[in-house]
Amino acid sequence: MNKKEVYDLIVIGGGPAGVTAAIYAARYKLNTLLISKEIGGQMLEAHKIENYPGFKSISGKELADKFKEQLKYLNIPVKEVRVDGLQKSEQGFIVGTAEEEAIEGKALILALGTERRKLNIPGEKEFLGKGVSYCAVCDGPFFKDKVVGVVGGGDSAASSAVLIAKYAKKVYILVREAEMIASPSWLDEIKEHENIEVLYNKSVKEIEGDKMVSSIVFEDGEELKIDGLFIEIGSIPATALAKEIGVKINDKGYIIVDERQATNVDRVYAAGDITTGSNKFRQIATAIAEGAIAANSAYENLKKK
Amino acid sequence: MNKKEVYDLIVIGGGPAGVTAAIYAARYKLNTLLISKEIGGQMLEAHKIENYPGFKSISGKELADKFKEQLKYLNIPVKEVRVDGLQKSEQGFIVGTAEEEAIEGKALILALGTERRKLNIPGEKEFLGKGVSYCAVCDGPFFKDKVVGVVGGGDSAASSAVLIAKYAKKVYILVREAEMIASPSWLDEIKEHENIEVLYNKSVKEIEGDKMVSSIVFEDGEELKIDGLFIEIGSIPATALAKEIGVKINDKGYIIVDERQATNVDRVYAAGDITTGSNKFRQIATAIAEGAIAANSAYENLKKK
Repeated sequence: MNKKEVYDLIVIGGGPAGVTAAIYAARYKLNTLLISKEIGGQMLEAHKIENYPGFKSISGKELADKFKEQLKYLNIPVKEVRVDGLQKSEQGFIVGTAEEEAIEGKALILALGTERRKLNIPGEKEFLGKGVSYCAVCDGPFFKDKVVGVVGGGDSAASSAVLIAKYAKKVYILVREAEMIASPSWLDEIKEHENIEVLYNKSVKEIEGDKMVSSIVFEDGEELKIDGLFIEIGSIPATALAKEIGVKINDKGYIIVDERQATNVDRVYAAGDITTGSNKFRQIATAIAEGAIAANSAYENLKKK
Repeated sequence: MNKKEVYDLIVIGGGPAGVTAAIYAARYKLNTLLISKEIGGQMLEAHKIENYPGFKSISGKELADKFKEQLKYLNIPVKEVRVDGLQKSEQGFIVGTAEEEAIEGKALILALGTERRKLNIPGEKEFLGKGVSYCAVCDGPFFKDKVVGVVGGGDSAASSAVLIAKYAKKVYILVREAEMIASPSWLDEIKEHENIEVLYNKSVKEIEGDKMVSSIVFEDGEELKIDGLFIEIGSIPATALAKEIGVKINDKGYIIVDERQATNVDRVYAAGDITTGSNKFRQIATAIAEGAIAANSAYENLKKK
């Protein structure tokens, strides 16, 4: 890239919010760049999406492929690289990546989504990819006829368990609390699977094994023999970059946005799971709305000069 | 229908907001009915949609067909009938239709959208369907090699003119103000069409003709020979039903909703173009977010009892 080129808008993050922001920005004829290590974001982990209007049933991967097609069709430049730094510049903002000098933009839309929450227990890091996984849709099929644990009590734990149960011999859902908080339709689905068993008041203390996971130990000292452990205990917003340019986040770590998706920093907008918008109802449907609004706000702001 | 059956939720309106609300409500296992005189809403008039993520280019009609498929796939009952009355009942609300007794629901989501704004000038009603139209995508193709006027200065006037220019010999855009307020990409498209001419400061006073439109007269007395006139001057929210149950609307006629899409009436939510939500950025992308949030709110509310 010519170092002197300054984009009107740089969208960071390739999930539904970022992709929609880029599509809208292109319609406004803003010189827009989309940067993301991959297109699709956390949606890529969804094996079946049945609540996005227009597709009766589609995988996250398939929908991401449609996003890619659409970006290409609209001639929107996409750089598939991880962003490793952000700073303010005279013209706006400089986005640092591992691959090249620097990319400059007059305005930013941060759509970095969230990252998987960890248990932070012994064995978790050690056995990652050796029985420990954060992605049922990616790794579930590897546990055919095995015994698997799923840690968590919400929708993602429930949906992961249901998926894994299609492959595994036995799935234990390991709930720290006395009940699950997953939605009724998921709870019903769990009941329909005879090979899923829910264990309540169980906190995993340690993951054990040799080359592969062989068992887990709970806080109460009990042990459970398993071949794999899926950790589905939620996500944390990826706001490290936002902090570098002074963007305000709330006490739970989400970027504070107003109704126009504006942050406290002029010409910096945020959209999707990373924000406090849409009243924390974090769906593809709400992420794309936030992306569209953020692009509209950036356009209105950039028009001023 | 069994008169005694009471739905958990009745969604009125079959545009993107209403359809999404019904999809989400079904996922929550609410006993939901969608009522709308047709599925698709104002989207049906869009000849080309290129800003809805997942479809690089699709007509409103095609997207509506996908919505219909999805509703069917999810076993969501749809009643294609016009609603002609709303009233409060002991259990919730009674929805009156021309076709049958009455339908009762514990909660409502109003997603009735907007209706086309009229010029209210002589000849407008008389020549409707005889040269006068409010829908370029429906009627544009009938004006092959004709001379057509498009009234309006915004995006819908611009996009309609571009579409009609593919058929007509000549298209005049008739702008009441001294400039158009359409977005830059549409203004560029207009410039690319040699057969489109924009006339500024022109208010249409009267539409004349015999069996079909033959000319229009402006406020300044000038006359213009045309074969057809498309009126694209915006929309007004369809809030007549909402008023019947005391739902508050703002000074521009839109239903006032909070950030959870709730109206001032308990268990009545609103979503899509009809509301003050999404900061008036009225897009398919924002309508579906509002529909999803409204369904989530209704579910949370209905869970209480």
